[in-house]
Amino acid sequence: MGLQFEEDEFLACCGSTKFAKEMAKASPFSSLDEAVTAAREIWFNQVDVNAWLQAFSAHPQIGHSSSSSNATSAQWSKGEQATALATATNSSLQELSEWNAKYRQKFGFIFLICASGKSTDGILAELKKRYPNRPIAEFEIAAQEQMKITELRLVKLFSTKENVTSTCN
Amino acid sequence: MGLQFEEDEFLACCGSTKFAKEMAKASPFSSLDEAVTAAREIWFNQVDVNAWLQAFSAHPQIGHSSSSSNATSAQWSKGEQATALATATNSSLQELSEWNAKYRQKFGFIFLICASGKSTDGILAELKKRYPNRPIAEFEIAAQEQMKITELRLVKLFSTKENVTSTCN
Repeated sequence: MGLQFEEDEFLACCGSTKFAKEMAKASPFSSLDEAVTAAREIWFNQVDVNAWLQAFSAHPQIGHSSSSSNATSAQWSKGEQATALATATNSSLQELSEWNAKYRQKFGFIFLICASGKSTDGILAELKKRYPNRPIAEFEIAAQEQMKITELRLVKLFSTKENVTSTCN
Repeated sequence: MGLQFEEDEFLACCGSTKFAKEMAKASPFSSLDEAVTAAREIWFNQVDVNAWLQAFSAHPQIGHSSSSSNATSAQWSKGEQATALATATNSSLQELSEWNAKYRQKFGFIFLICASGKSTDGILAELKKRYPNRPIAEFEIAAQEQMKITELRLVKLFSTKENVTSTCN
């Protein structure tokens, strides 16, 4: 007997509908570890490149607030960027915004980074370091960052459910 | 002084509008070699993953005739598939069509192969071999196949222009 989840809950972890469907099919999961293993397999080996692009487009530009229609995703995104926002100055936010635009122009999708615990300067340095990459290399790096974000969100999703379950017991 | 080309001529070589624009910007080319070197640099290092997907979608499914709006591209595609069509049987075409559908379902784009000189059985064997690949690996292989097709088409484009030039002299 494991924890059962809805497609929408997985969609809050990763904005690809294919990913969310496959995760819902693979659930219930008996543990968080089992869910993370399934998520990695689905994300890296099963969903196609269009699913990656769809998931990327569900994120707000880093330094901006989320416009996601998924309320949970928007709320989590805000939390993940908390350190960046706390360490931001007007000029660093301006520079980040300019580099974001430059990145999007080159790669055709937004700059994606697992921002939890990272300062604005740290994020900006990472963006500048990744910018010279070949588009296909950067595409795969962005997918790895998405997976890191998904894993952190799965942890949150499980802790919410476990709390609910223990409250009910 | 080199040969001057229009964007549309490059679009017949590779159906990405970004690629065609960049090639037109980089021309005139003093030789075919120079054009091929520029094309590789633009295709692998400059255009983004959306441009790759756009180029893939300009091809007919292998074993089918082209629906490309670019007449030159449609004609070249027919020539490239001549060996495959000459060696095809009803049952091999049927099997190819089924595997094409399976491939598209998994990867989100059509199976792309530089078909020049390849039999239907050879193409089918290659499709089955590539099918188990991870989506991101297959995406890059498809881009390499697209580049082979582009190179063959650049050869044709140059030979047409050189004939015209020598006729005019």
